[in-house]
Formats: sequence, structure tokens, C-alpha cells
Amino acid sequence: MQKPKSKIQNPKSKISPVPSPKSPAPLLVVGAVAFDSVRTPFGVAENILGGAATYLAVTASWFAPVRVVAVIGDDLGEEHLRVFHDRGIDISGVVRARGKTFRWSGEYTGDMNEARTLETQLNVFEQFSPTLPPAYLDTEFVFLGNIDPTLQLHVRRQLPRARLVGLDSMNYWITGTPSELKKVLAEIDILVINENEARMLSGITNLKKAAEAVRRMGPRTLVIKRGEHGVLLFSEGGIFSAPAFPLDEVHDPTGAGDTFAGGFMGYLAKTGEFSDCQLRRAVIYGSVMASFAVEEFGLSRLLRLTPEEIETRYREFKNLTHFDV
Amino acid sequence: MQKPKSKIQNPKSKISPVPSPKSPAPLLVVGAVAFDSVRTPFGVAENILGGAATYLAVTASWFAPVRVVAVIGDDLGEEHLRVFHDRGIDISGVVRARGKTFRWSGEYTGDMNEARTLETQLNVFEQFSPTLPPAYLDTEFVFLGNIDPTLQLHVRRQLPRARLVGLDSMNYWITGTPSELKKVLAEIDILVINENEARMLSGITNLKKAAEAVRRMGPRTLVIKRGEHGVLLFSEGGIFSAPAFPLDEVHDPTGAGDTFAGGFMGYLAKTGEFSDCQLRRAVIYGSVMASFAVEEFGLSRLLRLTPEEIETRYREFKNLTHFDV
Repeated sequence: MQKPKSKIQNPKSKISPVPSPKSPAPLLVVGAVAFDSVRTPFGVAENILGGAATYLAVTASWFAPVRVVAVIGDDLGEEHLRVFHDRGIDISGVVRARGKTFRWSGEYTGDMNEARTLETQLNVFEQFSPTLPPAYLDTEFVFLGNIDPTLQLHVRRQLPRARLVGLDSMNYWITGTPSELKKVLAEIDILVINENEARMLSGITNLKKAAEAVRRMGPRTLVIKRGEHGVLLFSEGGIFSAPAFPLDEVHDPTGAGDTFAGGFMGYLAKTGEFSDCQLRRAVIYGSVMASFAVEEFGLSRLLRLTPEEIETRYREFKNLTHFDV
Repeated sequence: MQKPKSKIQNPKSKISPVPSPKSPAPLLVVGAVAFDSVRTPFGVAENILGGAATYLAVTASWFAPVRVVAVIGDDLGEEHLRVFHDRGIDISGVVRARGKTFRWSGEYTGDMNEARTLETQLNVFEQFSPTLPPAYLDTEFVFLGNIDPTLQLHVRRQLPRARLVGLDSMNYWITGTPSELKKVLAEIDILVINENEARMLSGITNLKKAAEAVRRMGPRTLVIKRGEHGVLLFSEGGIFSAPAFPLDEVHDPTGAGDTFAGGFMGYLAKTGEFSDCQLRRAVIYGSVMASFAVEEFGLSRLLRLTPEEIETRYREFKNLTHFDV
């Protein structure tokens, strides 16, 4: 394992938390901080700040205090870290290592439902094995972004006080390291994956049966992302189906899944509850945030949101789905 | 045009309408009555009664009195007509012509989202040009099933008292007879098509923009069917998104779209209203009926429903989509 060169300190946040009857619990997220290069029918962006941890953290910061665990290289400067600082995000768990930051490039064509990856450079991520700062060890709400399941388990086990642990994974780990993935699945509460991943993980085509099989692997709550077709939530409260928000134009779908997860987990951390009622609301908040994210390239739209815009779109989701009994 | 051999009389219905404060208005449906041969991963059915008009009529009969306009051949006997009689459906507009009834055979594989057509025999349908019985001419609620747009217009223009006219079409007419299709679109109220048809008809990939373009062609209400991903309703009241009902097993998707349309239009005829609130309810009733239809081959499940089952599943749709504001 590569030694971290330095810890990054979070300067005094510009955001002062609004006092509320019950303060939101902090959410810890782990995953990649990356430089993305993206091409879509609407344009091109080169080397913009991205990565699962970034999307998760920026999105969740609209709901709750956020703690990040990640690794960055020499090439990620203060101008990029300011994105986290400005959102009041605690990055004392982000280590800087010698070398280059994780890089991903991809393009979207046609219906833009799936990215074609052009290149992935793990760089400093290759040696990533996070040890959490002491100040993080009391975290109760956790989201383990899509990284090696062995690392996810390593983080999970450093958090004995975790009350709600969410996890993302992907085809690469489902087929490549299935036993490691199953080990961490047994120790988490919520799995957030897309529909093909649910089918692959369970070996079952029918989504309802696939969901039942996946829930028997550990996570009592399963969120299945279906891109432009919305989200299915399988939990003790039954099945909940949420649509995607119909948009005139999707400019860049990069990070939409992580943005969903950030809104979903951020809302749960904010309320500190995970009843069926709150899980459903969390799915809608996740969908609201994802619907904003794809309107512009990278993090742009997520960074200049207002709480009013979030609430307005939440009500628009209600209008989109409501019918009388 | 082939001369009809005989008109078929509807014997006294077994179903006596339940008196209600406001009697449901009759719904007229036009389309194919057919023999279907279907293969799915769950089995095979040969020469079973099907066709758009059949699915539309049987489904709508759970909500309102139904009048059918169709053509059948010599090979369709009393045992098949009994299906209509038993549901109290008026088939005085069904003519019998010399020759064989329309036949379709197809198979479903994999995710069963689309049928692969193995054979289509138009047979007596080739010469079909319906003249409506005088007793049909006062009909206010009409659904023009997926047939040649010239025939759809021919039927539409025989119904001067129609208050609400729905229409289905398909790729074949969109590309083959676009000007005839556009002519009938200008004289209808509701178009019910699938998402690829909406894209093809408008030439626009984005579904929201495609919907706006299609609505400018005439139908102020557009229903876009998305199979296992549910239904989108575009109307004066905005956009409404309804999910499909998650099922453990889909045995036979044949007729699901027509069943949806039958439930949708049947409910509107029943209430006699088409406010946004009622359109949304109608979408759910259509989805309820389609969710039953696919549980078994052919018409089986639709024929042995109960009103209680329909209402229970309607409430299950509510539970599937509800979240608190």
C-alpha cells in the first residue's frame, strides 16, 4: 500500500447548518474522486472533476453533513478541492498520493442510456486501501460507492456504529470477485444497483424474483435503477416504483446513478429514519437530484441548486405520479 | 369489397347491468377478430381467439357496454362468439364474410418485450370496409383499433355524435401510409401508441418533445405505452407516469396493449368524463387490466376476473406508487 503524502484539511465551511429540531446525521461516502472526459450529443468536457465519491458527496451535502473517504493524486489542486469546501464537505478522509488521480473517459450516443467507456486509468486508486480518520469512526450513515468489494468491506468493518450502510457495485465485481462481493453484501442494509446488475447478481431475468433473491443475500432494502425508466424500491414495505423525471434534454448522464444514491442516502441521514415512508421519500429525493444532474455537464447543475428548486421538483414528481383512489 | 354473408345477432346477455346513478355510455371498438398462435417460454397456444377488437371488447366489458365492429370468416364458430355473448358484448356490427378469419402467429423470447411475428394472414380482413349498423350511430365513446388509417377514418366519419375517439396505430402505417394516418389523427382525441411509434411518428428521439409534436398533429391526449416500464400520459393536465405492475411471471404478452386500451377507454365510457383526474384513473385501470391479461395465455385471465380483483389491484397500484409530500 502506498503511503498517503498528506491529509487534506477542511477549512472553515462557508455553510452554517440551519438549526433544526433534530440535526441531520453525517453521511460517510467512499469511492473514486476522478477526472472525467465526456462526449455526448450536446458537447464535450475534458478533465472535469467527477467520480462516484464526488457526485455522492456534493449531492448529499444538500441534505446532511458529508464525510468523504477517497484518494487523489498530485494533479488535483486547490481549485478542485474548493468544490468540496464550498459545500461544507468534510474531506479529512481524502488522502493525497504520489501520482495521477483516477481518470475516466467515455461517450454517450443515441438514447444515452449507457456510456461507452473509452479509457479508465486507475492511477493512485490502484493502491487505495483507506484507513478512516478517528473523527469518522462514529459515523452512523454510510454509502460505499462502487469500488472493489474487499475495500468496501474494509471500510464497513471500521464503522462499528453504522446504523445504515448502502452499497453500489457493478458487473465487473459481480463476475470478477463474486465471493468478495457476497461477503460485503451480507454486512450491508441497502444495495443500489441497476437492473442488469440485479439480473446478473441473481442469475434471474424476472426483476421481481431477482430482487427477492438479492435481498436474501443480505441487503433488506434493494434499490434498482432503471435510467430513464426510473427506480424500483424493494423493502419490507413492499415494492415502490418511481418514474424518472421527463426532461426535454439530457446533456450528460455521467454520475446520475451516484447522484441518485447521494440524494437517497443524504435524505435518510437528514431524517435519521428509515421507515418505508421515509425510504420512498428518499427514492424521490434521489430521483430529483439525478434529474437535475443530467441537465448539464459534470457537477455544474448540482453546484448551483437552491433548496427551493429541490422542493419544487419534489412536488413535480408528486404531480407526475398522483392519481385518486 | 366482399359482401358480408350475414350479420351476427347478439342473444340476450347473461349480464344484467347494475343500476347506477349514471349509466355507463357504450364504447364502440373496431379492429381485428383473429385466431392467434403464440409461443412463449411458458408454453404454446394454437388458434386461440384473439385480435385487437376481441381484447378491447372483452376488457372494456368490465366497465361499460361494448359494441364491436369487425369481420370474421366461416371458421369462427358459435363457441368463439359465446365469449362475446357471455360478456354482454354487442356484436351486431360484426360481419361474417366468405373465407378464413384473420390469423396471426408469433413468439416471445428473452425479456418478452416484443413479439417476433412468424406469420400474418389477413384473410377476410383484406376486404374489410365496415358500414356501421344504425343502432351504433349514436355512439359517443369510440376506440379505433390498429387497422388501416383509411378504414379508421371511414368509421370515425360515420359517428357524428362521438365525444371521445381513441386510436391505435403502428410502424407499418406510420411509414407506409403517413398522409392517411395524419388525416385521421386530425379527427381524434386520444392516441395510444408505444414509445418507438411515438418517436417514429414525430421523428424525435426525446419522448417529451416527441409527445408535444404528436399532440400538435391532432390528439390532445397522448398515451405512450412502454411495456414493462408502464405508461406515460400527456394531456392538458400535464404529464402522468404510471408503472407496470411487477409480476412474478409474464406468461403471454399478446394483447396487452389492446387490453390496456380497453380498460382505459372502458373506464372513461363508464364515467362519461375525461377530466385530467379521470384520465389518470383510466390509465391505471388500463394498466390493471393489462397486468391481469399477461398472467395467462390469450383471454383466459380476462374472462374469469371479478370486479373485486380489479379494485384490489387498482389499490395495489396506489401502494406501488404512493409517497408522502
